[in-house]
Amino acid sequence: MYTVCFLPDGLEIRTTGSDDFLSIARAAGILLDAGCAGQGTCRRCRLQGLSGTISDADGHCRVLDGAVDFLACLHHPRSDVTVTIPERTRVGEIAALPDSLLLKLSPEPPLAHQRIAVDCRPPTQDDNLDDLTRLRRDGGSVLPADLDFAPSTLAELPGVARGASWKIDVHCLSIGSRSLAVATNPAAERVPAYGWAVDIGTTTIAVALVDLGSGDVLATGVGLNPQLSWGADVISRIVAAEIPGNLERMSLAVREFICTMQQALLRRANVQRGWVLSAAVAGNTTMMHLFHGVPPGYIRRAPYVPAFTSYPVVDSALSGMCCHPGAPLFTCPAVSSYVGGDITAGAVACGLDEAEEPALLLDLGTNGEVVLSGKEWALCASTSAGPCFEGGGISCGMRAEHGAISSVGWDEPHQRLVCTTIGQAKARGVCGSGLISSVGALFTASGIDRSGKLNAGFPRVRRGEDELEYVLLEASETALDHDLVLRQSDISTFIHSKAAVYAGIETLLRQVGIPWEAVGRVIFAGGFGAAIDVDAAVAVGLLPKTDGKQVTSVGNASLAGARLYLVSAAGRQRIDRFGASLTPIELSAVPEFMDAFGAAAFLPHTEVR
Amino acid sequence: MYTVCFLPDGLEIRTTGSDDFLSIARAAGILLDAGCAGQGTCRRCRLQGLSGTISDADGHCRVLDGAVDFLACLHHPRSDVTVTIPERTRVGEIAALPDSLLLKLSPEPPLAHQRIAVDCRPPTQDDNLDDLTRLRRDGGSVLPADLDFAPSTLAELPGVARGASWKIDVHCLSIGSRSLAVATNPAAERVPAYGWAVDIGTTTIAVALVDLGSGDVLATGVGLNPQLSWGADVISRIVAAEIPGNLERMSLAVREFICTMQQALLRRANVQRGWVLSAAVAGNTTMMHLFHGVPPGYIRRAPYVPAFTSYPVVDSALSGMCCHPGAPLFTCPAVSSYVGGDITAGAVACGLDEAEEPALLLDLGTNGEVVLSGKEWALCASTSAGPCFEGGGISCGMRAEHGAISSVGWDEPHQRLVCTTIGQAKARGVCGSGLISSVGALFTASGIDRSGKLNAGFPRVRRGEDELEYVLLEASETALDHDLVLRQSDISTFIHSKAAVYAGIETLLRQVGIPWEAVGRVIFAGGFGAAIDVDAAVAVGLLPKTDGKQVTSVGNASLAGARLYLVSAAGRQRIDRFGASLTPIELSAVPEFMDAFGAAAFLPHTEVR
Repeated sequence: MYTVCFLPDGLEIRTTGSDDFLSIARAAGILLDAGCAGQGTCRRCRLQGLSGTISDADGHCRVLDGAVDFLACLHHPRSDVTVTIPERTRVGEIAALPDSLLLKLSPEPPLAHQRIAVDCRPPTQDDNLDDLTRLRRDGGSVLPADLDFAPSTLAELPGVARGASWKIDVHCLSIGSRSLAVATNPAAERVPAYGWAVDIGTTTIAVALVDLGSGDVLATGVGLNPQLSWGADVISRIVAAEIPGNLERMSLAVREFICTMQQALLRRANVQRGWVLSAAVAGNTTMMHLFHGVPPGYIRRAPYVPAFTSYPVVDSALSGMCCHPGAPLFTCPAVSSYVGGDITAGAVACGLDEAEEPALLLDLGTNGEVVLSGKEWALCASTSAGPCFEGGGISCGMRAEHGAISSVGWDEPHQRLVCTTIGQAKARGVCGSGLISSVGALFTASGIDRSGKLNAGFPRVRRGEDELEYVLLEASETALDHDLVLRQSDISTFIHSKAAVYAGIETLLRQVGIPWEAVGRVIFAGGFGAAIDVDAAVAVGLLPKTDGKQVTSVGNASLAGARLYLVSAAGRQRIDRFGASLTPIELSAVPEFMDAFGAAAFLPHTEVR
Repeated sequence: MYTVCFLPDGLEIRTTGSDDFLSIARAAGILLDAGCAGQGTCRRCRLQGLSGTISDADGHCRVLDGAVDFLACLHHPRSDVTVTIPERTRVGEIAALPDSLLLKLSPEPPLAHQRIAVDCRPPTQDDNLDDLTRLRRDGGSVLPADLDFAPSTLAELPGVARGASWKIDVHCLSIGSRSLAVATNPAAERVPAYGWAVDIGTTTIAVALVDLGSGDVLATGVGLNPQLSWGADVISRIVAAEIPGNLERMSLAVREFICTMQQALLRRANVQRGWVLSAAVAGNTTMMHLFHGVPPGYIRRAPYVPAFTSYPVVDSALSGMCCHPGAPLFTCPAVSSYVGGDITAGAVACGLDEAEEPALLLDLGTNGEVVLSGKEWALCASTSAGPCFEGGGISCGMRAEHGAISSVGWDEPHQRLVCTTIGQAKARGVCGSGLISSVGALFTASGIDRSGKLNAGFPRVRRGEDELEYVLLEASETALDHDLVLRQSDISTFIHSKAAVYAGIETLLRQVGIPWEAVGRVIFAGGFGAAIDVDAAVAVGLLPKTDGKQVTSVGNASLAGARLYLVSAAGRQRIDRFGASLTPIELSAVPEFMDAFGAAAFLPHTEVR
């Protein structure tokens, strides 16, 4: 047995040496970034070795001296070992805004989970019914008539019943019109009950452990979708899934990744797997096909129909969730091939289904979905904005985690941008909100022209390897070993993305025939970091002018929607109903969209209306 | 790649050498006897090596020369190999009587499985509903309103729908009040649908592949229950299951064994796993607890209550069945701790629930259950008869397979028994029917006295190692390398067993207060071999006199009951109803039972009435 000490946490773990460092950390509740789920390919799970001996997969040993970086997933301890977990290796809590805005929108008590106390008569020679029949008989007046029992519940019933002297708590979950008993436990103590809310994005996957009683989020984790190795966007994934065997591999990769994250969250929150009694998952339509192992091929072929929009309630355990084997898994309902359950659930979590005046939701994930909702109508479009708001496709881009530049200001005396990072840490990159803020500030200061070109004579603009670049921070000001720069190509990518979103907004307004001025609320959702800098968003032309509008940023709306679907029967009803009322607009079929897109490819944009 | 040739079948299999011979045979559809499921402990999977080289688990090689016997599960081919499968190594078809008697009892059409053709409108730009919603819409008038779709069905839907130009066959199974869609397939061709009927006995496990359309049995297999390594009777198994970890192990062992047998049966019948759409399992209450992984401990503790009698319908795949992942698994309902679903289902398969005059079912498995059924009442008792009727606990005993002596006659000129074997093969042992026949004939010829003692002066009776024995056949007349003998202790074991059954009959008659003469029909069920020799059964006192009664032997009634439960909704209703009406009699609580048992421990018995 060796002892592995993880710094800076100071956690010491006893291990036999048969597990790799990734598994050892996971067992201790420390989740390392491992997009490839431990295959050694993503090379993100680096640890800094301080002392001790490790061996690699071939059995080659190395002595650690503080200068050795190694991949956790490929190495085993061969002595007592001390390592430091670099901040960048750790999978963060979701570092976006607290979702207090969203929580207020689900005040209904959670109806999905019900604890029913049954006081059974103990069996005797003359009353020797079996345990299950006895429970049904003695609980006849309080148990739902159509109650099904999960296999694992039956397996624990004999022991629990006698341990509790036949005072049995039955935990029931309502699934549509049916009820499922998922656990029995002594009535003596309070029984905690938890659930998983999961958002499967094209780029990132976020998981929240939720208390089913209070609706509170106990722990969250976010990581890169391991399917990224099959392509960055949904179309690449669909194409990849058509190669025989790939669909199963892709499905398994995402399920295993979710389960791994869940194991770590359970450790961190000190919650037993068996007390996770329900799960809800949200994601775009393609991600849901891949997760459930359903071929997504027809999503990309005219007339672009998915195999399903509403997926049946199934056993969570069958889908690889780390939970009670009988726990049901809910899938948030999609609308069409390009408007998924992440949008329907997220929009309701933001209150769009009960908006008094027209409201706009911009979900800046990999696709950039736009929802426009009024009292009598709701439209939605997916814009193919790309992943830049999540830190993807940008040379200095990163997720909204510790060390990400989330906003900037203009320092007039020094003629430069000043950067604010998440956690006040040394900067490691720029997340979505920081990107909007940076481009906006540079454009306002004339460091970028209307077409998005860097001004070669502007302070801190220099020629990089192939192109001009703006030096946000010098290496010494960062946690990196090189200067943190915004390249010309990064700015061009950003302008493409913002133009797609802007053109989507314009197109939806025209479809429904209302002016921009009629929109009262604008909500930004997504893992872009800090609150969107509204002035910068208007300056770069991501939004039209926002005079008199309420503009808010809510973080991961899809995850909040999954949480709502998980804890509240009323929330499920609202999401189902909103999904049925939402009209998807296929932008490529609307001629005006391409005109609007072209006009928006400037800073801020060209008026075409 | 090597070629393995299995004789006498002549099958040649190409293999890489990474699989052991047990797996290679299984892949070829040849099921070898491996009670330990390939752990190398039961030592039953012997092959005779004719030529080639093999290696054991440690990599030691041996050259085969015709004289080498080796265990299939522990050896791999290391060259082209030719082996002979000894008849005793092969898991036989069920060699009991054809169950034509039973088939006549389920004339209702199978209602469980329904194929519904839906003609869908293909999707267009204007009608771009998802596949599942489309199927529900266009099948609205013919599909059940509450139809659930199994996950695997959804996974195949996009491909099937387009492959069949949107003429979709939906295979539905009714489960209680719900319907489950388990497959979709082109309407163009006939779609076969199959099911598993499984009988899990304490000693043997029998599996039948059933055509759901016709109810016909396509292939059967029978083997030793791998839980035998945890004890021969239900009490030993219950005790073993209380050791932590054992319940899971025992459950897994029986599931894996069933799946292994099923894989071989599918190969043999050339049926795809995906077309097995339903399964039904029957067994005594303890076997059902162990199979479903439910602790059976309270079955053996006063007041002797099981955890369940009716088990919910669950996914077969979750229970390890080799079938379509969405196929439901039905468990035949039990009555009490000692009257299982094997009895309720078997009794209905024999028509006891609709008997016009009192009828008696004797199921001679490991326990020896007795069912007495009249027009208005039905009683049942379990007698702890032991496994001798299945060939267990008898030195020369064997299952009712090829080479088992199934009946004998008396050759007056030569003053000896003449033996008939199953399959007219050279004898390897004695099955249950042969044992009754042998003891009856020896008693009638005065080779055994009333107390069951062998007559030392009788022809062919000799002193064996520890006790007297009767030489049934000399070694040269058998497939063995030694004489086939019936020992004094075998006869004593048999008398104990038959006395338990007889006393059970007596006790049930007294409970209901009718004389033996009122019983019109006697049915023997069990894997004992040929039809019971009624004269011998009366001569040894297994039965009272049978004048004027109809006496039949039906083979494995439990398996027939599981088949009925599988294919017929009406059959399920009858079995559920009969189970609810059957009164279990706990013999140990009836004072007269022990008196009757004592009196019956003679040949034929002592009248105590």
